[in-house]
Amino acid sequence: MSFRFDVLRTHPAGARLGRMTTAHGAVDTPTFMPVATHGSVKGMLPSQLHELGANILLANAYHLAIRPGVETVAALGGLHGILAWPGPIATDSGGFQVMSLGKLVRVDDDGIRYRSHVDGRAGVMRPEDAVRAQEGLGVDVAMSLDECLAAGASADASARAVARTTAWAARGAAARSRPETALFGIVQGGLDLELRAASLRGLVDIGFDGYAAGGLSVGEPPAETSRAAAGIAALLPPDRPRYLMGMGTPRDLLTFASMGYDLFDCVLPTRNGRNGTLFPRQGKRTLRHAVHARDPRPVEEGCACYTCTHFSRGTLRHLVMAREMLGAQLATVHNLHFYLHLMREIRAALAEGSFPERPAVAAGAWA
Amino acid sequence: MSFRFDVLRTHPAGARLGRMTTAHGAVDTPTFMPVATHGSVKGMLPSQLHELGANILLANAYHLAIRPGVETVAALGGLHGILAWPGPIATDSGGFQVMSLGKLVRVDDDGIRYRSHVDGRAGVMRPEDAVRAQEGLGVDVAMSLDECLAAGASADASARAVARTTAWAARGAAARSRPETALFGIVQGGLDLELRAASLRGLVDIGFDGYAAGGLSVGEPPAETSRAAAGIAALLPPDRPRYLMGMGTPRDLLTFASMGYDLFDCVLPTRNGRNGTLFPRQGKRTLRHAVHARDPRPVEEGCACYTCTHFSRGTLRHLVMAREMLGAQLATVHNLHFYLHLMREIRAALAEGSFPERPAVAAGAWA
Repeated sequence: MSFRFDVLRTHPAGARLGRMTTAHGAVDTPTFMPVATHGSVKGMLPSQLHELGANILLANAYHLAIRPGVETVAALGGLHGILAWPGPIATDSGGFQVMSLGKLVRVDDDGIRYRSHVDGRAGVMRPEDAVRAQEGLGVDVAMSLDECLAAGASADASARAVARTTAWAARGAAARSRPETALFGIVQGGLDLELRAASLRGLVDIGFDGYAAGGLSVGEPPAETSRAAAGIAALLPPDRPRYLMGMGTPRDLLTFASMGYDLFDCVLPTRNGRNGTLFPRQGKRTLRHAVHARDPRPVEEGCACYTCTHFSRGTLRHLVMAREMLGAQLATVHNLHFYLHLMREIRAALAEGSFPERPAVAAGAWA
Repeated sequence: MSFRFDVLRTHPAGARLGRMTTAHGAVDTPTFMPVATHGSVKGMLPSQLHELGANILLANAYHLAIRPGVETVAALGGLHGILAWPGPIATDSGGFQVMSLGKLVRVDDDGIRYRSHVDGRAGVMRPEDAVRAQEGLGVDVAMSLDECLAAGASADASARAVARTTAWAARGAAARSRPETALFGIVQGGLDLELRAASLRGLVDIGFDGYAAGGLSVGEPPAETSRAAAGIAALLPPDRPRYLMGMGTPRDLLTFASMGYDLFDCVLPTRNGRNGTLFPRQGKRTLRHAVHARDPRPVEEGCACYTCTHFSRGTLRHLVMAREMLGAQLATVHNLHFYLHLMREIRAALAEGSFPERPAVAAGAWA
């Protein structure tokens, strides 16, 4: 088992500087994982991701198992071959997708029965299948199959989802056969911290390489997200990596890193980039606005990214308005640069004792 | 006037090794100009185009004049600023677009009256406007406004289009005010070589920095294209650059370079790439075909491009099937690499005396 996690330094308020060692190399934490749901970070060459300082990517085992299929991925060099990425790769197993795909899925104690959103074929993903699929993809960090509920679920439904998630976690852990793939458990339980604590106890009893907080930012008010995330962070084993799933804005990254979370992912920088929304330090910038049409300045003055050193706001607006792919690509480059630079600033500040002031400067209007 | 053209070596059959010097640098010819119609080579960063060995880009003045407008481009550093491309840039003026946009335009002796395909606004482009627009974009090589007819036009219509194109060329030439922008005349006349000769005489009397053959590959049989292109090449002034507009396949590039054409452009490598069609030496490859699904080989074995050195056929097929932008980008990289590599081989062969054998090897099944 090559996986390990070392906490190198802990800030009094909870933030940690760490290093997660995987079968494909080490990941300095806290870090942000660019999202490669279907086998690519949309619009980005792997060489660009490397230049931007990405140190781990996140794909989705559920989507990849449906298309192109685990055996096909394995025949093509595993997910490392598909992504042309020699570094660490993590996958989510599919619990969140089950929630978001709604009518195409049915969940019972056995697992998830779904109809493929690609061709309508019926399939099943049991917790054992989820682990085997991620092992078959050859990933470095896999997630247990969980049941993720949207905000507003009843106390009963939440309790049942936790019980099911714990049972699935145990079945998945028992199905493991590949030491190179670390497995994380996912804490569920909505906004009820007692239920969250019970969920975590069940997972710790089974024993995982890391722990994730799932089922947050699923429709609840942001203040509730923060309260729950802080409560969960206080319970998580300090010696294991902590992954806060699916968040968030630059402000969120700083807030939740402060609580002691180590790993983050979110589609915001990539999806918003494709829609022409940029994340400069000054705050959200919508390229479609006519005010940018003849603006020769870069999206963010002083930014070192390829987009800001080569293209003006006016040019980016033109590319977005003309629906040129390059506009989406360049916006994604800037947004990922912003996110990954912020994480570097967080790590540097934790190393040198200037947390959270230094990353707050990097986050600008977002902090 | 900084523009000049030097023929460095001429092959007995007509092919020439040359160098075209522009206000933004020199272009070794024969060369292929990647197409950046609306202000970007779709899916390609300028740094990638540079790495691929592109030495001149081709944009479209008609489209850019409509959106974002010449004044906006000028405010953003000219077309060199929009493209983030410090090297030579050429533009077509819009005659071909007039033909392809059909019902949105009306042509009379004065010029082209159009309705914007973006917002329906009425506009006019006279030959003087076409020259001023291209000068306003700051391009290195501009094209005269021409009337381009589809194949099958009557002898009368062809003769009228030639007369109009000649008159427009004279008006455009008289409107020039920017020495850094070279101006080419466009030979029209369909498949009638006498009419082509008359068209060319009219242009030579006016005097242009270079001459283009337009109105080919507009629906006529390929053998007719070749016959007309060869006939025109025999008439073109040998000391001026010769641009064969809008062609073609790799085989075409070799054929027409052999006739003595120096400049080429075509949307095939970029458009076909976006559709998942690749140009390896072995001949056209359609990525969607299921046979590629688990093929771990690169698109072209031995190819040095980024795509072939990092991605398998199976992965590219998956990206295309899943409609991931990256699939279109990677296919475009390979196709442009193939085209630009072929042009390098043509130039090297002309320099060392191994033309056309050496580029025929590079073209593979296409030659």
